[in-house]
Amino acid sequence: MKYINAILALFICLSTTCVEAQKKEELSDKYVLVIHGGAGTIVRSKMTPALEYEYTCALEEALHRGQYVLDTGGLAITAVEVAVKFMEDSPLFNAGKGSVFSHEGVNEMDACIMNGKDLTSGAVAGVRNLKNPIEGARLVKDSSKHVFLYGDEAQEFCLSKGAVYADSSYFFTEFRWNQYVKARDKGAIILDHDTTDVNYQYKTLEELEKFGTVGAVALDRYGNVAAATSTGGLTNKEFGRIGDSPIVGAGTYASNRSCAVSCTGKGEFFIRGTVARDIAARMEFGDLTLTESGERTMKRLNKLGGSGGFISVDKNGNFIMMFNTKGMYRGVVTNEKNAAVKIY
Amino acid sequence: MKYINAILALFICLSTTCVEAQKKEELSDKYVLVIHGGAGTIVRSKMTPALEYEYTCALEEALHRGQYVLDTGGLAITAVEVAVKFMEDSPLFNAGKGSVFSHEGVNEMDACIMNGKDLTSGAVAGVRNLKNPIEGARLVKDSSKHVFLYGDEAQEFCLSKGAVYADSSYFFTEFRWNQYVKARDKGAIILDHDTTDVNYQYKTLEELEKFGTVGAVALDRYGNVAAATSTGGLTNKEFGRIGDSPIVGAGTYASNRSCAVSCTGKGEFFIRGTVARDIAARMEFGDLTLTESGERTMKRLNKLGGSGGFISVDKNGNFIMMFNTKGMYRGVVTNEKNAAVKIY
Repeated sequence: MKYINAILALFICLSTTCVEAQKKEELSDKYVLVIHGGAGTIVRSKMTPALEYEYTCALEEALHRGQYVLDTGGLAITAVEVAVKFMEDSPLFNAGKGSVFSHEGVNEMDACIMNGKDLTSGAVAGVRNLKNPIEGARLVKDSSKHVFLYGDEAQEFCLSKGAVYADSSYFFTEFRWNQYVKARDKGAIILDHDTTDVNYQYKTLEELEKFGTVGAVALDRYGNVAAATSTGGLTNKEFGRIGDSPIVGAGTYASNRSCAVSCTGKGEFFIRGTVARDIAARMEFGDLTLTESGERTMKRLNKLGGSGGFISVDKNGNFIMMFNTKGMYRGVVTNEKNAAVKIY
Repeated sequence: MKYINAILALFICLSTTCVEAQKKEELSDKYVLVIHGGAGTIVRSKMTPALEYEYTCALEEALHRGQYVLDTGGLAITAVEVAVKFMEDSPLFNAGKGSVFSHEGVNEMDACIMNGKDLTSGAVAGVRNLKNPIEGARLVKDSSKHVFLYGDEAQEFCLSKGAVYADSSYFFTEFRWNQYVKARDKGAIILDHDTTDVNYQYKTLEELEKFGTVGAVALDRYGNVAAATSTGGLTNKEFGRIGDSPIVGAGTYASNRSCAVSCTGKGEFFIRGTVARDIAARMEFGDLTLTESGERTMKRLNKLGGSGGFISVDKNGNFIMMFNTKGMYRGVVTNEKNAAVKIY
């Protein structure tokens, strides 16, 4: 009987340890959130301290909002949506409220969200009156049998599912309109955060000809990764152009097998280079680390002639923020380290 | 002097051999063209010999047209365009003239073309009046600074560059219209080549509720691979849905480093699975053969729950035609083997 009791005690002890170990595996402490606000010719000499401060605050606030989700045991897919939504609402970035104007003088926005757990994803492109395009993408992911919806019909679907409508005047800012008129008259396409006049010193937001796609990637405490990207595209974009942001594998990708990725830059090169998928694929099929994977993908992007950058977090919590432009608005927060933001 | 002459002769001889070897390398005999006309519930018991003959003839003719290009030293990118164009012009397939109707009762077509040599690509989606959407994709690739254009504006661009216009009546067939009305009333989406009534015996084209995306992949005598895909989408598709066909990395991909791929099936799964890119990526990053790569990608597609198939040819001339449905209209021709067509 003594033996039986001892065995029973051992069994209970073992199974308790087992359950605890499993619990730990289910809900670890580790979480990571990385964001970007676009890449381009962003150099210190052209920034005023005031403007730098504005960007820093906005990026930090986006990180804090996403961090709250992750810290309290929320999902990666929710954290990236929350972080991107905040950046969409800021006029500093080329997404949501800060979107640039298309050739026709309207705002046309694209967004995509992807869950690394089950590879479910949703994307909208060419929407004009969704306050938060990333919310639209999430609704397509959760409530549609399709993955990728375009234009007025995409918008109609999202609104019918509860997305918030915003009138065109909401997106209008005088600065953005002037930027569009300037580009239209020149017949040029302005890349995110690019400037042509290198001697010009930015003093206020209205004078800063730099805006960017926004994106977020996260690892949650359950071990899931997710990615979200949102953009207003290029100034003076024409002909119903679709960029890389809403395309799974180009500007956005997430898989729990490898990592989550969000890109920013000249979209055409990111589509042709399937950049987001390649970073993950090199890890999955080539057994590279995230850093190696990112470096090789950047090398290939350079070869193609593409400019821009990407952020990524892998299933183990490693993360990268790489770009081949002068700067990229970016930031990271983890369960161990406070929010840290960089621009150059 | 004798020595000098001998050395000179040897030099000339060597350099001639060199040049000839180079010429051979530049223009080998080897070429391959593989095509598909869609995958679905295609079973022998539901086919009449007459209809089977019609499909066989159409596939063979598409192969012959592409073969002529390759045989005479033309490029892979031209061969795939020519083959797809012929299938678009046939009412047998869900592309070009055979396109299904969308939820609004119009034909909305998507197409994509990609050159493995330099990863250039072009795609159009949601076009309604281009006689050959694949021609539109080629024009975007060659004449636009963008890669992916949508809707009326895409069409406008292609027409301005010389694409052939076709009135809606060109795409209209009574059968297709009936198919749409039936689906709309049922509230169902009909997959390419799917049938719900398993006891039904098809007797004529008009009775056959089966149509498919079309695609082609080729290796030319210079060692380049290319891919093209064109589709009319799903019957009763809604909300400006974009499928996998026009998306680089999802339904279409080509790289001289690995292979060219064209997919057909339920597009949402091919987008989420980045199927076309994955077949190539497993070869590039994982050193798998094309067959191994195809098998593993199919396994992953099965796991995701996706149905359909894909064709691929690699840089060495190996090719695969794989599907997890009952059948896939498909065919292959090489410099060594005559055109061979299969359905089941």
